[in-house]
Amino acid sequence: MLMKQVSAFLLVGIGGFLGSAARYGASLLLSPVAGGLPLATFSVNIIGCFFIGFISELALSTTLVSPESRLFLVTGFCGGFTTFSSYIFENASLLKDGQMLYTSAYLAGSVIGGFVALYSGTFFAKIWT
Amino acid sequence: MLMKQVSAFLLVGIGGFLGSAARYGASLLLSPVAGGLPLATFSVNIIGCFFIGFISELALSTTLVSPESRLFLVTGFCGGFTTFSSYIFENASLLKDGQMLYTSAYLAGSVIGGFVALYSGTFFAKIWT
Repeated sequence: MLMKQVSAFLLVGIGGFLGSAARYGASLLLSPVAGGLPLATFSVNIIGCFFIGFISELALSTTLVSPESRLFLVTGFCGGFTTFSSYIFENASLLKDGQMLYTSAYLAGSVIGGFVALYSGTFFAKIWT
Repeated sequence: MLMKQVSAFLLVGIGGFLGSAARYGASLLLSPVAGGLPLATFSVNIIGCFFIGFISELALSTTLVSPESRLFLVTGFCGGFTTFSSYIFENASLLKDGQMLYTSAYLAGSVIGGFVALYSGTFFAKIWT
């Protein structure tokens, strides 16, 4: 029982390590392109929502995703890859700069884009299986 | 230069490991309390926003937070601790169950709560320094 719990924490942690490092990589690649716009966080959040939709649908309707893989891929990787704290921090920075239009677009665009990406991920998993 | 990049990825990754494992721990602690409500994700997202506000203000106005500590604490830990993919996934689940009121409250409450927590973190860092 204890070993199972330790391995669950390790699976989530290692997934989180890889997801967070990938998010940092995306921030290095995209920040020079985006100037002051939070394109990197926006992109990883949208991609992460697609991925969580895809994996969760596979886990639900097939035996391809074991509970351990789900912990690693969804709770670990997707959780580490996407971020809510930077999303709010960047919105507060835009707001501080008086960028009301960008703030509204980033706030709402991330949520709407996140839903669309999640449903797209679910849809592709349904087609694929 | 390469070593510096590798160590930056490691700092973010290890922070992400710890943040993600802590988020998973919170989900084990809070899920039995919350029933079907996404209290765990809500809580880690709000706490992460407080933390990012606190650390960012310290980094801005003091020399207490080195760029490496910031990578570890903000990009790594806060990024891994908070999650956008689960936030959208859980909202989509609530929506699927026809829980319009809970969906609206969770969607807006996380954003408003996140802003309040971030500004509170900034405020406490200003008082503390």
